[in-house]
Amino acid sequence: MDDDVILLDFWVSVFGQRVRIALAEKGVHYENREENPQNKTPLLLEMNPVHKKIPVLIHQGKPVCESNIIVQYIDEAWHDKSPSLLPSDPYLRAQARFWADFVDKKVYEAGKKIWATEGSEQVAKKEELIEVLKVLEGQLGEKPYLVGESFGLADIALIPFSVWFHAFGKMTMNMNIERECPKLAAWVNRCMEREAVSKSLPHPHKIYEFDQKKKKGQ
Amino acid sequence: MDDDVILLDFWVSVFGQRVRIALAEKGVHYENREENPQNKTPLLLEMNPVHKKIPVLIHQGKPVCESNIIVQYIDEAWHDKSPSLLPSDPYLRAQARFWADFVDKKVYEAGKKIWATEGSEQVAKKEELIEVLKVLEGQLGEKPYLVGESFGLADIALIPFSVWFHAFGKMTMNMNIERECPKLAAWVNRCMEREAVSKSLPHPHKIYEFDQKKKKGQ
Repeated sequence: MDDDVILLDFWVSVFGQRVRIALAEKGVHYENREENPQNKTPLLLEMNPVHKKIPVLIHQGKPVCESNIIVQYIDEAWHDKSPSLLPSDPYLRAQARFWADFVDKKVYEAGKKIWATEGSEQVAKKEELIEVLKVLEGQLGEKPYLVGESFGLADIALIPFSVWFHAFGKMTMNMNIERECPKLAAWVNRCMEREAVSKSLPHPHKIYEFDQKKKKGQ
Repeated sequence: MDDDVILLDFWVSVFGQRVRIALAEKGVHYENREENPQNKTPLLLEMNPVHKKIPVLIHQGKPVCESNIIVQYIDEAWHDKSPSLLPSDPYLRAQARFWADFVDKKVYEAGKKIWATEGSEQVAKKEELIEVLKVLEGQLGEKPYLVGESFGLADIALIPFSVWFHAFGKMTMNMNIERECPKLAAWVNRCMEREAVSKSLPHPHKIYEFDQKKKKGQ
C-alpha cells in the first residue's frame, strides 16, 4: 500500500465520495474500509473523536477529517502528483474554497430537506434546491469547471450530489436538471468523463434503492 | 493605500474581527468600511451577492468572502510577509483548517444560542458552550497555540469569541472561563499580548452594552 493510506468510508456518503475522487485523481493507492453509521468501529471513534463521522483519511497513522479539508490535504501531501486539485493563484484558490463551502452550506442542506419530506412539501423543497443550483449555474457560466479552467476542489465538492439529482428525478418530483440548469447538466457529463469521478460514484439506481429501503425502515 | 485593499466590516462581528487580526498580523494597510447589517450598501450586495454578508475583503477590485477563507487568502496573497498564518506541513495545515471549522460549527452555534435565550434556558446553553470549550482545552493541551507552535488560522478563528465570554460572564450566568478552562484562559491572555489581536478586538464592555441595547430594541 502506497504511503500507508486508509479511508474510513460509507459508500452512500457524498462526503466519502469526494475523498475517493481526490485520491483517484492523484493516483494514490489506499485501503477502503466500509463503516456502518449505525454501528461505528472503535477505530472511527478513535480517529475522529470530535465529530465521530466518516470520511476519515488515515495517512501514516494520522487522521484527517472533514471532506473538503481532506481534499486540500491530499492536494498538499501529494503535491508532486498531478493534477493539482487547487489552482496556484491565491484569488482562484479562495474562489475554490468559497464554492466548496457553498455546496456544504446550501446544496447539502437543501438536498437533505428533500430526503426528509414527502408530497407537496417535497415539491417546495425541490424548488429551493433548484434556486441553489441556479446560483451554481451562474458561477459556471461558459467555463468548463466551477473555478478556473481545471477540475478541482469545488467540482469535487459538488459532483457527488449529481447522483442524488438523478435519484430525485426518479422520485415523484419530476426534477429535471437538464431543463432547469443545462450548463450544470453539461458540467456533470464533463466531470463523469473523468475515470476518477465515474469510478468513485455509485449508480443512481443504487442510491434510489437505498433511499426507498431506508424509508421503509429496512 | 497598499495594494488597494478595502474591508467591508461591522465592528461587533467576530467574523470581521478575524480578518482585521489577519491583516494586522501581516501589516497590510487597508481601508475599513463599516456596514450597517440593517441597511446594507450596494457595494456589499454587489461584492457578496451570494451570502450578502460582511466581512468582504476587496483586493484590487476583487472580492473574497467568508472569514476563514479570507484569512487563508491573506496568508497566500501576502505570503512574502511574515508571520505565516498557516503552518507549512500539510498535516498541520489540515489541523488548522479543522479547528477553524470546529469554531464555526460548534463555538459560534453554541454562543448564538446563549444570546438568543434567557433565564434557566440560557444556563443550559452555557453548559453546552462549556462542553465545546473543553474540547478546545483538550486540543490546546500544553501547546502555546491551538495547532503547532505558532499563532495562526485556528487561533484567529477562536480569539474574537473570547470577548463574548467576558460579556457572558457579565450576564447572569456566572460563566468563568478561568475556572472552567484554565489553559484556554491562559491562551486568551497569550493571544491578547499580540498587538494585532488586542487592537483588532472591541472592549468586552462595548459588546455587553451592544447586546443590552439590542435586547431592549434600541
